[in-house]
Amino acid sequence: MNQQVINKVPFLFGGDYNPEQWPESTWEKDIKMVEQAEINSATINVFSWSLLQPKENKYDFTMLDKIVSLLKKHNFKIVMATSTAALPGWMVKKYKDVSRVNTYGIRQGFGKRHNACPNSPNFQKLAEDLVTQIMKRYGQERSVVCWHISNEYGGYCYCDNCAKEFRKWLKIKYTTIENLNNAWNANFWSHTIHEWDEVVPPSKLSDEFDNGKAVLGGEALDYRRFQSDSLLNEFLMEKAVIRKFNKTTPITTNFMGTQEDLDYFKWARHLDVVSWDNYPSFDTTAAFTAMNHDLMYGLKKQPFMLMEQAPSQQNWQAFNALKAPGEIRFLSYQAVAHGANTVQFFQLRQARSGSEKLHSSIISNRDSTQTRVFKEVAQIGTEMKQLDTNIWSSRRKSKVAIIFDWESFWGINSSVGPTVNLHYINRIYAYYKFFYKNNISVDFISDNDNLSTYKIVIAPAHYILKPKLANKISVFVNQGGNFITDFMSNVVDENDNLFQGNGPLDKLLGMWVEERDALTPKNDVELQVMDTGRKTKADVLCDVVHLDGAEILAKFQTSKFYNNYPAITQNKFGKGHAYYVCTALSDETMDWLGKYILKKGKLTISEKNKESVERISRYTDKYQYEFILNTQDREQIYHNRTSDLVDIVSNKKINTGDVHLKPFGVLITRIKLNEDQN
Amino acid sequence: MNQQVINKVPFLFGGDYNPEQWPESTWEKDIKMVEQAEINSATINVFSWSLLQPKENKYDFTMLDKIVSLLKKHNFKIVMATSTAALPGWMVKKYKDVSRVNTYGIRQGFGKRHNACPNSPNFQKLAEDLVTQIMKRYGQERSVVCWHISNEYGGYCYCDNCAKEFRKWLKIKYTTIENLNNAWNANFWSHTIHEWDEVVPPSKLSDEFDNGKAVLGGEALDYRRFQSDSLLNEFLMEKAVIRKFNKTTPITTNFMGTQEDLDYFKWARHLDVVSWDNYPSFDTTAAFTAMNHDLMYGLKKQPFMLMEQAPSQQNWQAFNALKAPGEIRFLSYQAVAHGANTVQFFQLRQARSGSEKLHSSIISNRDSTQTRVFKEVAQIGTEMKQLDTNIWSSRRKSKVAIIFDWESFWGINSSVGPTVNLHYINRIYAYYKFFYKNNISVDFISDNDNLSTYKIVIAPAHYILKPKLANKISVFVNQGGNFITDFMSNVVDENDNLFQGNGPLDKLLGMWVEERDALTPKNDVELQVMDTGRKTKADVLCDVVHLDGAEILAKFQTSKFYNNYPAITQNKFGKGHAYYVCTALSDETMDWLGKYILKKGKLTISEKNKESVERISRYTDKYQYEFILNTQDREQIYHNRTSDLVDIVSNKKINTGDVHLKPFGVLITRIKLNEDQN
Amino acid sequence: MNQQVINKVPFLFGGDYNPEQWPESTWEKDIKMVEQAEINSATINVFSWSLLQPKENKYDFTMLDKIVSLLKKHNFKIVMATSTAALPGWMVKKYKDVSRVNTYGIRQGFGKRHNACPNSPNFQKLAEDLVTQIMKRYGQERSVVCWHISNEYGGYCYCDNCAKEFRKWLKIKYTTIENLNNAWNANFWSHTIHEWDEVVPPSKLSDEFDNGKAVLGGEALDYRRFQSDSLLNEFLMEKAVIRKFNKTTPITTNFMGTQEDLDYFKWARHLDVVSWDNYPSFDTTAAFTAMNHDLMYGLKKQPFMLMEQAPSQQNWQAFNALKAPGEIRFLSYQAVAHGANTVQFFQLRQARSGSEKLHSSIISNRDSTQTRVFKEVAQIGTEMKQLDTNIWSSRRKSKVAIIFDWESFWGINSSVGPTVNLHYINRIYAYYKFFYKNNISVDFISDNDNLSTYKIVIAPAHYILKPKLANKISVFVNQGGNFITDFMSNVVDENDNLFQGNGPLDKLLGMWVEERDALTPKNDVELQVMDTGRKTKADVLCDVVHLDGAEILAKFQTSKFYNNYPAITQNKFGKGHAYYVCTALSDETMDWLGKYILKKGKLTISEKNKESVERISRYTDKYQYEFILNTQDREQIYHNRTSDLVDIVSNKKINTGDVHLKPFGVLITRIKLNEDQN
Repeated sequence: MNQQVINKVPFLFGGDYNPEQWPESTWEKDIKMVEQAEINSATINVFSWSLLQPKENKYDFTMLDKIVSLLKKHNFKIVMATSTAALPGWMVKKYKDVSRVNTYGIRQGFGKRHNACPNSPNFQKLAEDLVTQIMKRYGQERSVVCWHISNEYGGYCYCDNCAKEFRKWLKIKYTTIENLNNAWNANFWSHTIHEWDEVVPPSKLSDEFDNGKAVLGGEALDYRRFQSDSLLNEFLMEKAVIRKFNKTTPITTNFMGTQEDLDYFKWARHLDVVSWDNYPSFDTTAAFTAMNHDLMYGLKKQPFMLMEQAPSQQNWQAFNALKAPGEIRFLSYQAVAHGANTVQFFQLRQARSGSEKLHSSIISNRDSTQTRVFKEVAQIGTEMKQLDTNIWSSRRKSKVAIIFDWESFWGINSSVGPTVNLHYINRIYAYYKFFYKNNISVDFISDNDNLSTYKIVIAPAHYILKPKLANKISVFVNQGGNFITDFMSNVVDENDNLFQGNGPLDKLLGMWVEERDALTPKNDVELQVMDTGRKTKADVLCDVVHLDGAEILAKFQTSKFYNNYPAITQNKFGKGHAYYVCTALSDETMDWLGKYILKKGKLTISEKNKESVERISRYTDKYQYEFILNTQDREQIYHNRTSDLVDIVSNKKINTGDVHLKPFGVLITRIKLNEDQN
Repeated sequence: MNQQVINKVPFLFGGDYNPEQWPESTWEKDIKMVEQAEINSATINVFSWSLLQPKENKYDFTMLDKIVSLLKKHNFKIVMATSTAALPGWMVKKYKDVSRVNTYGIRQGFGKRHNACPNSPNFQKLAEDLVTQIMKRYGQERSVVCWHISNEYGGYCYCDNCAKEFRKWLKIKYTTIENLNNAWNANFWSHTIHEWDEVVPPSKLSDEFDNGKAVLGGEALDYRRFQSDSLLNEFLMEKAVIRKFNKTTPITTNFMGTQEDLDYFKWARHLDVVSWDNYPSFDTTAAFTAMNHDLMYGLKKQPFMLMEQAPSQQNWQAFNALKAPGEIRFLSYQAVAHGANTVQFFQLRQARSGSEKLHSSIISNRDSTQTRVFKEVAQIGTEMKQLDTNIWSSRRKSKVAIIFDWESFWGINSSVGPTVNLHYINRIYAYYKFFYKNNISVDFISDNDNLSTYKIVIAPAHYILKPKLANKISVFVNQGGNFITDFMSNVVDENDNLFQGNGPLDKLLGMWVEERDALTPKNDVELQVMDTGRKTKADVLCDVVHLDGAEILAKFQTSKFYNNYPAITQNKFGKGHAYYVCTALSDETMDWLGKYILKKGKLTISEKNKESVERISRYTDKYQYEFILNTQDREQIYHNRTSDLVDIVSNKKINTGDVHLKPFGVLITRIKLNEDQN
Repeated sequence: MNQQVINKVPFLFGGDYNPEQWPESTWEKDIKMVEQAEINSATINVFSWSLLQPKENKYDFTMLDKIVSLLKKHNFKIVMATSTAALPGWMVKKYKDVSRVNTYGIRQGFGKRHNACPNSPNFQKLAEDLVTQIMKRYGQERSVVCWHISNEYGGYCYCDNCAKEFRKWLKIKYTTIENLNNAWNANFWSHTIHEWDEVVPPSKLSDEFDNGKAVLGGEALDYRRFQSDSLLNEFLMEKAVIRKFNKTTPITTNFMGTQEDLDYFKWARHLDVVSWDNYPSFDTTAAFTAMNHDLMYGLKKQPFMLMEQAPSQQNWQAFNALKAPGEIRFLSYQAVAHGANTVQFFQLRQARSGSEKLHSSIISNRDSTQTRVFKEVAQIGTEMKQLDTNIWSSRRKSKVAIIFDWESFWGINSSVGPTVNLHYINRIYAYYKFFYKNNISVDFISDNDNLSTYKIVIAPAHYILKPKLANKISVFVNQGGNFITDFMSNVVDENDNLFQGNGPLDKLLGMWVEERDALTPKNDVELQVMDTGRKTKADVLCDVVHLDGAEILAKFQTSKFYNNYPAITQNKFGKGHAYYVCTALSDETMDWLGKYILKKGKLTISEKNKESVERISRYTDKYQYEFILNTQDREQIYHNRTSDLVDIVSNKKINTGDVHLKPFGVLITRIKLNEDQN
């Protein structure tokens, strides 16, 4: 699909809208209310299959027609979903195989959502038919600005149809059973296969331990790849139907940040635009949310849609705190700052009943425009409407990249050992947080991406190391790049087989790992930075390493035998440097290391925050738009050294010197770029 | 059934007796031993189905005949159970459907107890046959003073027979599928039904989340109602058989206090007398036990049977501490004080083996009357035998009522959000405890009860609010009553649909709730009482409310935006007042509020306890019997201002001034009432 | 099998070897590498069924032939396993019944290991065929020094075949259904059986509660006995096949210390030599490991094989810390000190992939002899090769015995109540630790063993007390022995029926238990030793007892009613003394009691450790070999009073006075025995 033929999604300020849940007589009133908040779009038809197709041979678009027609009347842009994310009762009753079988071998029944088996022929056929009907009817509808396939894809199935398709998938991948046995090291525990149909999905009944770990890592990886692919195939089937009827309108499905099940980098290639749902909890940091945005931006290195966010509280978390005044405004601007080109909410009107009834909405069940939440949303709507529209064609610029690798995520989570305290996302976040705190933009990239435009590339916990990446990193460092990796990286090949002898990066790093010590609750290991002499705690794991050319930046201090062993190493390689971090660093040491490497990468740190002021920019050819965001519910001060700055939200001048930011306050400055800054 | 034709249960001092578990040769010795403790009754035949009916077409009453005959010989009164609470092995083997299917779709096998499917036609027929046989044989047995159907009903089933009956139940309730879809808001997540047989029980395989919460609240409520009704129907079937053969002997089944599964108010209408099993744990407060007694009394507003209690330790709790000397005596008198007309134990003789073998009994396996437990029981028996028998026809009197609503209990427990810290029973207890500590008698009432006799009515966490109750409360307040409700009340209708616009009680309360903030572990919200200026912690949830006529009794103090917002409101309405409590109060603030409202209700607080002395009364037309109970295992003092009082247990005079109560000591005074006190 | 005809296993320094997991081209290199560490043996063929038998009618020994031939070439001694511990995929596909059904009634599929149903006729036949083929081929192979049947037996099955065999097992045991009902007290909860086929395995679907406790204790005990027997029968079937082809080579299977599932005393009678796998965690004390060794020694009162240990970290624990330098050497010598006659590792070469890939091995994936682990293993190998070979025919000597009783372990774990804090292994360890700390050798014995050679016999938590043992203990004490037992001992007979009236040991103990108080988190019970006046905390349970001849050694101090009641009693009986300990003692009080009883038993305590130096001896007719082991990762000092001692490991003289032991340091002294010391 040529990117050029896909119309860009315009700026949307809207949200999910499920009027089928309340009387038709009230619909237009709701629309008129949200118009007061400058809402200009609605995401519809997400969960209507059972209404659209009341029985196998009957379709009924009466209600959807009315909804579309009402929205058109009010000039709403429509994000139209395909409604395939929840199965009608009649379908589950008639076709058992449409429902997933869980890891305990138990077939699910009618209920919940996101639980269709992607390898069910009946489900595939019925979904294809439904989307065909929808496209026949609405395929040319010009108010539809984006097609939204299914919803929040995720979860795996372990049924017989999946088993059959898994075998086919394996046959294509491995050609022979010998290759399969070798890749999986299947002679382990007598797992050798002699016929393809001896393979079964690695469930709790077979090769998955109670704690979710795998007997054969290669099999577990393949099953995750296969299930991610199976859901992707389902997506692609729906996409193909849509494209049969409509060649240009962008197609998406809503992602969920750092989820585990799907390899979003692989998926993103097939989406015209990435969209995602941002649901921070009461204890989610602004940095963690920023990381999720940046990951979603990185998937295609393009602006994304913020498909869903709660205008105030969620309902499904343990403690669903209200958002503070200004917080949803801050979150909306933060999203835009990181690359969102839409600001959408779940949902326009609060559910009357059902498990989401206590989730906040723009119009609550009080039915009023005078609520705090409504007024805050309306302020955002008003502001965004007036925003410089060039922002929507601006892009991010980063000199730092973190490699995010779903396969390493999977591999670590399937590995038995070395410690329950190793969490892939935490490892990524440990590095991200440093750059975030110092207002340095980070790209999330995959194994397959080009490294040459970066000064610094980081591969935390890069457990699975493919030769192609190893080569690319060597070239990158050789040409002057700075590369950082750490413990539990460089461990296995793509089939979860340990490297024998040297790991592919050992030479580049100028060191090798002999042992990996899991720290226990009785941990007494510290790490001392050579330069500063400062000591802080080591955490999670300590690699016991040997130098082979590298020098020591920090060493362990411990009563253990690896006292004075390297804790952080640096290796000059060609024109660049490669770093290895043997343990989980304290924030203080990460701060030291980050700055040390920034200096090496000749990257300067912008004026440091006094506290938690986030500063991040989007760029057009001519302008830099800097978003200055108070991430906290208290006033903060930042120091402005640039004269003649204007906040383009309020159109007020920003003085030089100390600038007071209100709780969750937002400023956006526009700076004309010199030609050489492009 | 006309209440008049049912013979009252006489005072029973007895307990469960399962002689089929040991050799017949030892039975009479046991009876003679417990006679020394003044035991006068035995509950028998609770778990004997497999003995009574060794195969489908054979009944054998040999052993039961002997037991009955032995008990008659010793003039024991018999509580005769129907033995339907545990299934024989042959039955489970032959009729699979008699066993329940659990929420994971797994059919149970032979074993345990309380696990028959109430909707199994085979179970129904076999149970009916068994009870018929029992009644043919013992229906006219005069020593039987009470029929005890099954045992400790509870638990739900999710089998196909239940599914079928659920659909029938729904069809009767909703008539049309449209009504059903509308009541359940079934368009949510494509749950729209088109044929009745698309409905499936909301299990973990369908609409119940892993944490037990519901997708469709209305469906979950209906399934709970249906399962409660299904078990009730089973009870009613057995009751009908009994009444075929015996028109006058009271019929009961033993309840379990604040359990969740069954709507006891609905059940209690069909019991001639409520009975219940009291099993406090080592950390159960006397107040919590009192609350359970009062709930059981409130079900019929009549004295109840204390069907079971452990003479000392239980065995099935985490830490089965011994009861201290005097503790079981205290518990027995506490039960009588709250309305028990029997004092029964589990059990007369300790099980020889089986899962209850380590549960205390009157005769332990030491086979001696010289044990501490035996002697304590004997003392109670001796005292109770000599007690003024008018007590058994006395009643409770309360000017305060707390509405206990199993449907709100269910609705909150099925709702996703807003906080895992919200527990219905805790909310009830928070109010109850205040009155308990101040020796003020409380009635537990249902939605359907008359309010007019009370000065104060409290509806904590009254999540589901039906219009009829709303009206009744308005009339009550208008006529001078004091009504208190709190957060998570007044939220949904009986189908779990959020009220749109105003809630039914908003006008009465003179305020409305805009938002509900779930407090997190990082909570920094306090509440300040306007009158006293005292600040204490808020807990669980904080409602953000707006006044619409009400005044503020307390306000929030917090760094959050609702600083200075109302925390407790008071609204004058007609001649009365309605109060709204926006958060979970500290004990101190509850104490302040309780006293404030008592003053409004013109109720005086009796002499306050120095420590934990419980004082509660039962009344005949002529007398007040006040029970003065030391709830603690240490001496306590209370102040007596009334002269000429006699403790009718010891027949000793009670001096005025400081009265020393022994650890767990008990006094009962009898005060002649003035005519106007009736 | 006559013990004499079985060849003794020679000293092995080796480990598991799974070359089928990597290319054949690398095998010989590995063998040559481990030869540098003095490795002289390999355990092979543990998990190769699927390679050996690629389909039902085809065997293929090509690879095993090569492995055996390579090992022979290098003069390795072979421990040959039978490969029956993990099922091939084709077998699970064709014969469903070979896989176990779990306690939730769910049949397992292909995967994992240790999950064949021992009562599956198909599994039995296929296993028998496999072992027959192996024996035909390798039965006369002289390099095989030990046959290793299956692997780490354990776990239960609940399938229909098990149900059928359980009924047969019961029929043989009980002859009549009446006997069964009586033994199980099956009239409890209507569990009376009328036909044998009404019996079902006590699973979660039937008579096992969610917390694993039993409805009928007798049934639970019988099912554990039956499952332990079923696996034993499977072992015996394999053993019989082996013996058909080979009359003399020792046969073993590897045990797992204090595991719960199997009655190892019963099993050990059928093993020619006990072997076991020692996997201490980072927080396992040296004392606990010692206890496991002693239990394994006690099973046959003979030296055992240390079949597996990790040369450094494990991978399957929560925190897999590295072993410190010297730690594996210490652990190896500790094993030998306690009776190991082999030192074997898991495994010679690190797995390439699979769930054990992160488990340490002698050759790691670095493929080097220069790793720390390799060098430490090589040091041990070199030392052990030079060790006085008389050690391998030496034995342990103990005057103290602790009775370890799997049936009491099972009975306590199946009992509902009295406290979740009662753990059988902890109770055993509480006593063991005292003797360990004082360097006093302990035998673990079973109910069936002879007591007459001991001065002190301890039966902690001996819940099930059989008459035969009671008699034996009485004779033992009467003749001058010192017997100690404690709370939750002497409670039930072998069918889990409570003793009625006196327990079998009451007379011997001179006291009886009236009540058992479970201590709660609010515990305020102390115990005061009469002699010293010292008070320390009581824990877990407090028995309330009455003296009947015994005297008080310690009494309770508490606000509870049993203040001043006996906490430890002593009863003179014949020439000896019997002790009863009413609660879980603090270490301090255990220390007092232990020393008090040692004095009674006329046993002296050897020079006490300054810190944690373990001293334990093995004896030949002529020599005592004392192992002096620093159990800690820090230098320690012990005081040596014997002159002319030589450390036979280093051949260095040991001075009298303070001897410095390096971290994890080891000394072995050889002392010639006087004739009267034999």
